[in-house]
Amino acid sequence: MHTDAEFLGLLRGDGPGRFHFTVDERLGRLDGLLYGGAAIAISIAAAEEVSDRHALWMTTQFVSTVGQGADVSVLAEVLAPGRRTNQVRVTGTNDDGEVVFASLGATGHHRPDGLTGEFERAPVVSPPEDSDSWKGPFANAAKAAGIELPELSAVRANTGFQTVIEMRQAEILDHPDPGPGRMCLWVRRRDAAPITPALAAYMADMVPISIAQAGGALVGGTSLDNTIRIGSFVDSEWILLDLRPHLAAGDYGHGLAHVWSRAGHLMATASQTASLFHIDLTRPPWGPERS
Amino acid sequence: MHTDAEFLGLLRGDGPGRFHFTVDERLGRLDGLLYGGAAIAISIAAAEEVSDRHALWMTTQFVSTVGQGADVSVLAEVLAPGRRTNQVRVTGTNDDGEVVFASLGATGHHRPDGLTGEFERAPVVSPPEDSDSWKGPFANAAKAAGIELPELSAVRANTGFQTVIEMRQAEILDHPDPGPGRMCLWVRRRDAAPITPALAAYMADMVPISIAQAGGALVGGTSLDNTIRIGSFVDSEWILLDLRPHLAAGDYGHGLAHVWSRAGHLMATASQTASLFHIDLTRPPWGPERS
Repeated sequence: MHTDAEFLGLLRGDGPGRFHFTVDERLGRLDGLLYGGAAIAISIAAAEEVSDRHALWMTTQFVSTVGQGADVSVLAEVLAPGRRTNQVRVTGTNDDGEVVFASLGATGHHRPDGLTGEFERAPVVSPPEDSDSWKGPFANAAKAAGIELPELSAVRANTGFQTVIEMRQAEILDHPDPGPGRMCLWVRRRDAAPITPALAAYMADMVPISIAQAGGALVGGTSLDNTIRIGSFVDSEWILLDLRPHLAAGDYGHGLAHVWSRAGHLMATASQTASLFHIDLTRPPWGPERS
Repeated sequence: MHTDAEFLGLLRGDGPGRFHFTVDERLGRLDGLLYGGAAIAISIAAAEEVSDRHALWMTTQFVSTVGQGADVSVLAEVLAPGRRTNQVRVTGTNDDGEVVFASLGATGHHRPDGLTGEFERAPVVSPPEDSDSWKGPFANAAKAAGIELPELSAVRANTGFQTVIEMRQAEILDHPDPGPGRMCLWVRRRDAAPITPALAAYMADMVPISIAQAGGALVGGTSLDNTIRIGSFVDSEWILLDLRPHLAAGDYGHGLAHVWSRAGHLMATASQTASLFHIDLTRPPWGPERS
């Protein structure tokens, strides 16, 4: 279970760059559909495999949805095979050959003596041991509205990606750039394995939550894409997702998530655009209108 | 010259979503090859045209290069035609049908009463009237090294994208999140027309310069991608490119550029990954080794 392919259930298919996977519990959202973080993680794993290089950057666009039990075929292609850098394309399709997700990215060889540095500051936060379990995106709003959400909380821990990753809400003690919607989440694999770039991308699909909090509105977000830019990873059981919403306009929102190691190394930066939908907490289930 | 298509020389081709353009001076880099900012601007203009919606987000991957005078065919496709949001793909190919650039993005309708807000703070900077012309990426390093760069400066103003846009180096008086490599550039069209999302993307292809400055190294950057996330645009002759490098690892670098209106509205956020190459200023011309 320690390789990305094992974690994601990504199997080799027939021919170069061909893979496939089945949407199981861990690859699902809370509503059972394919989780966006899983699609970008699979794109990274497939791109690294086909190019024999480390992922540098990946953008995954969500074109259609598939549910639990669906089989998805993956084709990873090197569009531009440079000596150092490969430009790659990864496409997931369903049984009818329809595109589920489309990814563009690059892989490459880091130069051992190449320019290396971190130019952002980490927030000072409570350690994971002193941080509470994350109660989900609507807990604060529900509390403010005097609404009990026991059913939601119970479902969440046993559904979708939450079955394999654990999330805790870090208390922000000092932030280098305070502002609306700043949130920090500690995240780890429940099996405590070190977090790879593919797994960080899997975990970082949380920006829409911070946009909702920044806007002070009870909204959910449907991701239009997940993007991650990857530096050097160090062994870290926990990562700190440092969510920084940027802006919202007309029910679309944008923002980023810095990915810090437990020791405070900036290992990656993720970003997303989401289509926002308004939620009435008194009338579950909550879900998006069709966009 | 006031529409994006006119500025970019983007012409309709035969059939839905088909366009073409010729790489002229304004679409070129300083070395004459297709400028990355031009490719993402063309992707945005084509996506908006084919979907009859405003661009929300676009990622453009640079697969191969073409030079001055080359004809590029563009195909813009709606992959997922939602009622509100369209997921789109835009592909540029050369005369031999080889991919030059590949773009993924989304367009959509802003809801007039939808969630709207800005969650970042603008730096306080000198106004464009009190800011010096931008001397290019190597001016500070050259000055420190005691090297004269008159030829470079002379060439730059009359070459490539600099023939149609003007850049000035803003003095940063107060920064919300100070750190290595923070740079602010005022940019406008030389014809003073208001800046659209496509033109902002055209102008924002400057992140690698800030990564070099942050790293304190004399490096140039070859963009692997340009990405932009778009909010609401207001009439603004000048935009402030607020460059915030994030990290570098093994001669790859990542960072973002907030795009502010003159009055301080956050209109878009651009980001990039670049492959870095080291430069010897005593031996022009400067260019990348093949990546």
